[in-house]
Amino acid sequence: MYKLYYAPGTCALASHIALEEAGADYKAVRLDFKSNQQSSPEYLAINPKGRVPALVTEHGVLTETPAILAFIAQAFPQAKLAPLGDAFKFAEMQAFNSYLCSTVHVAHAHKMRGHRWATEESSFADFKRMVPKSVGAGFALIERNMFRGPWVMGEAYTICDPYLYTLGTWLEGDSVDVSTLPKVMAHRKRMLERPAVRKVVEAEKA
Amino acid sequence: MYKLYYAPGTCALASHIALEEAGADYKAVRLDFKSNQQSSPEYLAINPKGRVPALVTEHGVLTETPAILAFIAQAFPQAKLAPLGDAFKFAEMQAFNSYLCSTVHVAHAHKMRGHRWATEESSFADFKRMVPKSVGAGFALIERNMFRGPWVMGEAYTICDPYLYTLGTWLEGDSVDVSTLPKVMAHRKRMLERPAVRKVVEAEKA
Repeated sequence: MYKLYYAPGTCALASHIALEEAGADYKAVRLDFKSNQQSSPEYLAINPKGRVPALVTEHGVLTETPAILAFIAQAFPQAKLAPLGDAFKFAEMQAFNSYLCSTVHVAHAHKMRGHRWATEESSFADFKRMVPKSVGAGFALIERNMFRGPWVMGEAYTICDPYLYTLGTWLEGDSVDVSTLPKVMAHRKRMLERPAVRKVVEAEKA
Repeated sequence: MYKLYYAPGTCALASHIALEEAGADYKAVRLDFKSNQQSSPEYLAINPKGRVPALVTEHGVLTETPAILAFIAQAFPQAKLAPLGDAFKFAEMQAFNSYLCSTVHVAHAHKMRGHRWATEESSFADFKRMVPKSVGAGFALIERNMFRGPWVMGEAYTICDPYLYTLGTWLEGDSVDVSTLPKVMAHRKRMLERPAVRKVVEAEKA
């Protein structure tokens, strides 16, 4: 059985949805970020980065959303969550997820996690002013150049979809004008029509 | 024939080395960052992100180093640059590369590309002061918890190796105390013993 460490409101939601979509036998373990449980010695022994998600498998622990998502797709080929037989299409999918991870998520992180890159209060205030623009620019590129529809990669639902959905749930909180992102917003609605997505979203709220 | 768009001193070096190691038929096309060639309409038509690397294939264009590296490994299985038949080991490799991309490279980028996340000169100065610590922390985790030796993933050379080598070339410029990173520094030396690595490093210098 897989064990997924997550916290509500984090990018771990993408891996949580993917496990559910794959029909995996898994247990979701919630960490309490308010009491800083992700920095406890117990959790650091599992994931020395002190972050979520972490996926415990029979072979060892995996971190980093793009890697976990690709692992789920490969470990459950019958769920058809990725174009596994086509190296180019697989790479396109990984490029999309890497962009979400290293550009879009990083832009968002400057709102609350500025201490990773700076120390001054004035810098943190500067970051917060910039977030609507930097996160907005990332999503604008997705809307204009990357999103194919009806799913991220086109006709087939893939591991890009729960990841885009997850980061998209931060848009309003980041004060991005979502009226400029009709494809992304229709995708959010489409995602919530999937029973697996609804089940996981409800479970993380509970 | 593949075409790799790169600029000297950037993370594109990792994909460049991987193409050479794979024995791929490729042409490396240098962009002049000083004249901002990466933002020219011609290049934006190839890669709307205005960044390097971009790999032009017969099927289309790929971006994002972790995706390009995995593509090269999958497209040239005879080069044995990745554990392609093992989903868990493949994911461990992708997790390492994702960490380099979204944490280590991002920490480094705050030195010169602060305008992505802030607007004030005081913030840029704050970033610059933090870079030795943030980049150093990323490499310290690699040194302590991730690097297996003699190569990143252990006995087998993989696509993690050119990527670690590439980001490692920034350490001294980022004022990280490399004496605290003996494994990473021995890896750099080991990389430069490989003819493919030396050939590409010389080609980018020329």
